[in-house]
Formats: sequence, structure tokens, C-alpha cells
Amino acid sequence: MIQKILIANRGEIALRIVRACRELGIRTMAVYSEADEQSLHVQLADEAICIGPAASSESYLKADRIISAAEIGDVDAIHPGFGFLSENAEFAEQCESCNIKFIGPKSETIRLMGDKSMAKEIAKRAKAPIIPGSDGPISDEKDAVKVAKEIGFPVIIKAVAGGGGKGMRLAHNAMAFAKEFQTARIEAEKAFGNGDVYIEKYIEEPRHIEFQILADEHGKVIHLGERDCSVQRRYQKLIEEAPSPFLDDKLRQKMGAAAVRIAQECGYQNAGTVEFLVDKNGDFFFIEMNARIQVEHGVTEEVTGLDLVKRQIRIAGGEAMELDQKDIKILRHCIECRINAEDPTRNFAPCPGEVTFYYTPGGHGVRVDSHVYQGYVVPPYYDSMVAKLMVYGRTREIAMDRMYRALNEYMIRGIKTTIPFCAAVMKDPVFRGGNYTTKYIEEFLSRTPRDVFTIDDSM
Amino acid sequence: MIQKILIANRGEIALRIVRACRELGIRTMAVYSEADEQSLHVQLADEAICIGPAASSESYLKADRIISAAEIGDVDAIHPGFGFLSENAEFAEQCESCNIKFIGPKSETIRLMGDKSMAKEIAKRAKAPIIPGSDGPISDEKDAVKVAKEIGFPVIIKAVAGGGGKGMRLAHNAMAFAKEFQTARIEAEKAFGNGDVYIEKYIEEPRHIEFQILADEHGKVIHLGERDCSVQRRYQKLIEEAPSPFLDDKLRQKMGAAAVRIAQECGYQNAGTVEFLVDKNGDFFFIEMNARIQVEHGVTEEVTGLDLVKRQIRIAGGEAMELDQKDIKILRHCIECRINAEDPTRNFAPCPGEVTFYYTPGGHGVRVDSHVYQGYVVPPYYDSMVAKLMVYGRTREIAMDRMYRALNEYMIRGIKTTIPFCAAVMKDPVFRGGNYTTKYIEEFLSRTPRDVFTIDDSM
Repeated sequence: MIQKILIANRGEIALRIVRACRELGIRTMAVYSEADEQSLHVQLADEAICIGPAASSESYLKADRIISAAEIGDVDAIHPGFGFLSENAEFAEQCESCNIKFIGPKSETIRLMGDKSMAKEIAKRAKAPIIPGSDGPISDEKDAVKVAKEIGFPVIIKAVAGGGGKGMRLAHNAMAFAKEFQTARIEAEKAFGNGDVYIEKYIEEPRHIEFQILADEHGKVIHLGERDCSVQRRYQKLIEEAPSPFLDDKLRQKMGAAAVRIAQECGYQNAGTVEFLVDKNGDFFFIEMNARIQVEHGVTEEVTGLDLVKRQIRIAGGEAMELDQKDIKILRHCIECRINAEDPTRNFAPCPGEVTFYYTPGGHGVRVDSHVYQGYVVPPYYDSMVAKLMVYGRTREIAMDRMYRALNEYMIRGIKTTIPFCAAVMKDPVFRGGNYTTKYIEEFLSRTPRDVFTIDDSM
Repeated sequence: MIQKILIANRGEIALRIVRACRELGIRTMAVYSEADEQSLHVQLADEAICIGPAASSESYLKADRIISAAEIGDVDAIHPGFGFLSENAEFAEQCESCNIKFIGPKSETIRLMGDKSMAKEIAKRAKAPIIPGSDGPISDEKDAVKVAKEIGFPVIIKAVAGGGGKGMRLAHNAMAFAKEFQTARIEAEKAFGNGDVYIEKYIEEPRHIEFQILADEHGKVIHLGERDCSVQRRYQKLIEEAPSPFLDDKLRQKMGAAAVRIAQECGYQNAGTVEFLVDKNGDFFFIEMNARIQVEHGVTEEVTGLDLVKRQIRIAGGEAMELDQKDIKILRHCIECRINAEDPTRNFAPCPGEVTFYYTPGGHGVRVDSHVYQGYVVPPYYDSMVAKLMVYGRTREIAMDRMYRALNEYMIRGIKTTIPFCAAVMKDPVFRGGNYTTKYIEEFLSRTPRDVFTIDDSM
């Protein structure tokens, strides 16, 4: 049994872990940077120790200092949260070698699933579909056309050295392909000094749908259903929900089973997430597995009634999971909005500063996870997320109406936040219709005047 | 369909109604006393109108002023909340005659169930057990003994003009009865100048267990399970939970069916509560029916997933309820603590004043209903309740641990509150064992040093 945990993180997830520990009767030790001295997780933990200056590289990413703190504190386990060192296999290994339980999968699993090509290999072995593509770069046009035909059009041609959309060309048929292939090679050569390209199936109207996994240390693996995280801006999730309005029960079962097989195949332990893209036909493709608790884990907690962070700790303590797949019921609909200290009228520019007035929404079906309080100063050094607002209800429509109500009740003065942006999404017919893809925010922003995202803060 | 509602209340229940209306897309009009100008319900309602000075008798109890406000605001309906005018049959009648929908039962039902002897009559007709007793005062000793024997010992002898325990005597058998009967008469004569007494069955180890009723205007009546409200101090509920740790499924069904029959018998419409006492043998007795939404309604919302205030409004709008009894599932355990501005170390003396720091607990399974914000001044004129903290979990044990965690996280500085008292109860073995009666708080206080109820507010 774990008696004391060091929390190697900050902000709301550090507070989240303090909460779970308190409910389990486990003592906590916070670590913090000089910028986080006034942070709530520092005040609510049983002990706290400063591990360095504001910059993450000098504090929250300093594995040695955290291990030292753990030894000073004589803790049994370290919870890494998400970000920072949570998917750092060396850190997990260091913990293991110091006989401190790392709350997450084994270091070798982290390493395995952190390597994109290895992870794809695991998925293949687990008979989970991956995005079809060429095996590495391809230079001969005839070979390329052959591969493209095998994959099936449309395909996307991508520069091996690529990024930012350069050297990336879309081809809908064999005729177009030849031309686009050469253009991509020339563009890639120009942009990166490397003309190598590879081919991948182009996913039409993609949705980002991920499955929550729980696996104990005795070989049991179950999934807790999906989260639809298609509402993203530059690969940053902003709004998540469960169940996905796009999946039917058949597809849900198929994807859930694939997610479980992948976790089994890599010997996964603890909580993890298997991410998929789903195209307009309902075909799904494995992208990656996140070997940690995720920001949006609360969505699954609200629909299943299970506390995932407590489950993580109990699994790390060696407990055999009493739950079977049949025990997992999706009881309601949940939506989460990430409240970031950003100004949606100025292209989501970060907006740190002092919170001069703070009122959190409440009432039936509303959950707030936040480390913010009135007088708190949002530091400029870290991620801009200041709160996760979750609502749930018997139906998706109830949840959307509740979210709109809660967003309008949430008062954070002194800084700009994504609240008005999220509120506008809740009233948007496309979002309400449930038929949105990963391109949703881009499209939504292009047809929405920015002044919609300002709020009356006269109160 | 109701388009606009006047909220004839204040504090957290007024805010609760604003929330329901916002989710339903209904406009709101707040009324407020001069003491409540800075109140959150005033700021969050679409319109607000001052109806008088601080004293309730000059504002929230002024039916005429509220009706005038409703007419100025051109509202379709008035929601009375609880307390104030919520069970005032004349007010309901005034609303009816002005063609404003009173959100609650018909005025004649309020009148009927507000009369204790009429309510008992209804219960009798509905074949629901009432507390056996003499029909009115009884003066002849022989008659009295006969009645006492019929009722069955132990019985309690109560002064008709009684109160405060005076002229109240308990008798465990016929021999003791004769003596106690005379003593009671003499005491009553001395204390009230009226020696009349009546006899009632003494309920041993009583539990206060109530059933939530929903009834639409088309004759459908269902119950939403029970709430155990035995944790009371001077008939003031402090902690409520559902399901009751005392009921088994059989008794639950029997009591629920009796509650439904009572509601049917009095032609009840809208949300209401049927209150029972349950003795140590599991025998139950009707006490009264509350013809309004109750403070503790949220407990039922959390265990059933249904929004009762929204249901009230939809029923008042004439909607036929789509739910049947079989659709009602108790999904989890919920506990509520009432957070009052009172000092538990000084016999729960009211403690109004300015809230200088405020942080509400959050995370999985936590609900806060409160109108308080940092800088808010709790006025001395009204009820001392400042928040309802609810937690839920898959089991009663999870809920208790979560409540303890949430109470310790709840920071209300500047005033004293019942938070440390409630936290101590959550750790008390008697409460945790679930075998508590309406005498619980008295017993708990007698064995608990008062300094347990002070908190470290160094933060």
C-alpha cells in the first residue's frame, strides 16, 4: 500500500492528484518552482519543497532534483501528471532504480510507445488498423503510383523532412498523383534541402477519437469508452466530449476492442489512452498511445462514475482491478471546455496576469478543476490552461445548454480567457449538430467575427 | 411554454432557479431587498427589481409587491423557492387570480397539506400509516390507559398547548402510565394554564426519511427515492444523504408507494416531499408533506441524474412527464452538508459578515450550490445558510471520504461556518456506520470537544 506520494507537476493536475490522495488517505509532497510558491497545490499538499527557478527546464523538468526531493520526503511513489516528465522513460527508469514507484506504465512501455514506428508495429501486431502508407521514403514515380494505388486515393504526399504544410500535396487520383508527386519533391528540396517524400492515405473528414484504457499489474485490461477530441486548434485540444456524437455502438465496440489489444500487446499497465483518427466512412486508424493520464480524463470520469486518478494510484499499489469490461457503463453525456488564459480576439495570444475577481460556476451537472483563486497570478512560464470546466447531463443537448450556462456564469476578471470562445461554440449549429471534424475550429473562426469573443465584464 | 419567470426568493435557491432558467432559455426577473443588492442572483438574472427594506416582512414576504413586480415585468410564472411565500396558499391563490403561474401545487393543495389534521386525514385515506394517538385531548385516566394500550407502549403524553418539552412525559407500560399521565397534566397546567394532554405512540430511534415526488398536471405521479435527513439540530437539517443507509429495497418500495398514494390522494402537482419517521423496527409513519422544492433537493438530483428545478418549470408549463417509475434509477450515493454562517464552537451562533477569502472545492464528484463570492457580505437578516456542498460517489464510503476532502478544501475566511463541524461528523464512527437517528447531533455534540470545530485558517 502506498503511504506517501510526491507530485511531480503543477497547476490543476497537481491539485487533482492532491484531491485523489486526500480521499485515499495518502500523504502528499508537492514540488514547486519559485514562480509557483503561491500555488494552491503547494498550500494543500502535506509538504512542499522548492526545486528551482521558474523555467521548467530548471525545475519541473529536473529529474535529479525531483528524485532528491522524493528521497528527502521518503515517499513511496511519484505521480508525474501530464506533460513535463510524465512520458520520459529515463525518469521512470530512475524512479524504478531508486525503488520509488512511478505511477504510470513501466519505463520500457513508455519508451516503446514513445517511438512512433515501434508503436505502429505494436498496433499492427494487435491487428489494429494504422494509416496505410509507403514504407519510408519513395523516389521512383512508377513505384510511387503503384503504392498510391494500393493505399487507395486520396493520398497525401509528405516531405520526410517536412513541417508547416510545405512539401505536402494531396492527390485524388493516379493522373493527378504523378504531377503532385514531382511538385512535392521539388518543394521539399527547396524548403528542406531534402527532396525525400513518403505517401500516406489521406483521411477525409477526420475525427480525433481516443479510448481510455485501465490496465492493472495482473494482466487485466479494460477500456472506459471514448472521448471525441476533434475540436482542436493547431493540434491543441480545446473541447472534448463523451460519448462521441459520431460513433455508433458497433464502431465503439470495435475501436474499444482494438485499443485493449494494443494495450495488451505492449504490456501496458496503469491508465493510458489509445488515439485514433476516424474518417467519414467510419474507418479508424491508430495514431499513438499516450502513456499517462490525460488532461481530458475527467470527461471519462463523469460518464463512467470512476475516479481515474484514484484508480491509477490503486493500480500502482499493486491492487487487482475488480472491474470487468461489462461493469463499464456510459451513464450520461459530458463536455469539457479548457479555459486558457488566452485572448481569443488576438489569435489566442497568452494572457498571464492577476485574477482580480473569481467566481466558479456551480449547481447540478457542473464540475470545475482549477487551481485558480481570487488574487492568484497566472505565471507566464507555463501552459496557459487555468481551468477545466466539465458539465454533464442525460443528453448531449442538456450538456450543451448547461455548458453555455456555466460558461456565462464563470467570472475570471483581470485576464482574458477562452470562455467567450467556448460559449460561442456551444451555440454554433455545426457543433450542436455533432458533425464536426478536426478542421472545425479553423472553419468556425473563418466564419465568426472576433468581437463575438469579447465579454461584458462590467460586474 | 413559459417565457419569463419571476424568482420570489434570494440566496442560493434564487441562483439555483436562475441556472435552471438559463439552461431552458427562459428569461428571469429577480426581486431583492435593499440588503441583497450585491447578491449574485440579482446580478445574474436578466432583470432585477428592489421590493423593499432588508426585513423579510418588508420585502420577500410582501406578496403584493411581488405580484406588482411580476405585472411590471410581464412574467408568465413565479418560482417561490423554499421558505418565504413558498407554502403560502393565499399567495399561490393571488398568482392564480392574476393569471400568473405559481410554480408549485395548486393553492388548495397547499392549504390542505398545510393543515396538520387534514394532511393526516389524507394519509389515512391513502392507507399510509400515521403516528397512532388519541383523537384530540383526553382527560379521563381510565380512558387514557385504554387508548395507550391500544396504541401500544411506549407512548408519549404531550400537552395540547405544549412546546419546549414541557408537559411531555414518556411511559413504557400501563403502570408507569397512570403516574406520568397525572404528572403531565399538572405540568401542563402549570406551564400553560391548560392541563389538556393527548397521547401519541413514542417512536423509538426515529429516523427522518423523506420521499421526493414529481407529479405532472396530467395525473402522473412518481417518486424519486428517499433522502435520509436524520442528522438534525433542533429540527434543522444539517446533513442529508441518499440512499438512506437504513432502508432496504423492500421498505423503500413500500414507503415510496405510500408517498405516491398520498400525493395522488391530495391531487398533488409539481415537485413535493412526503416526510416520514421510521422507527427501529422499520415501521414508518407519515409526518407531513412539503408542498415545495426543498433545500436538499440536489441530493436527489445527484443520485437520479434528473434536474428537479427544470422539471418543476416544465411541469408548470403543462408538459406531460415522459418518465415512469421504472425509469428512475438510483445511480450512486450522495451526501449534502449545509454550510451555515454559524460558529459551532459557540453553540452555532449566527456569524454574518464579509467573506474575505473564498475558494470552492472542485474535482470529480463535487457539487457546490452557493451565492457567495469573495467580498460578499453575509447579511444578518436571513437564514444563515451560505452554501450546500454535495458530493457523490459509487459507494457511501467513497462519498464520505470525498466529503471530508471537499470540506477541508473549502475556504471561507472572515466568517465562521459549520465546515469543521461537518468534517468531524464525516470522521465519526457512528455516522460512518450509518446507524444514526434524529438524536445523532445531540449525542455527537455531547461526546465531542468543541475545539474540534475550529480550523486552521492560516492560509
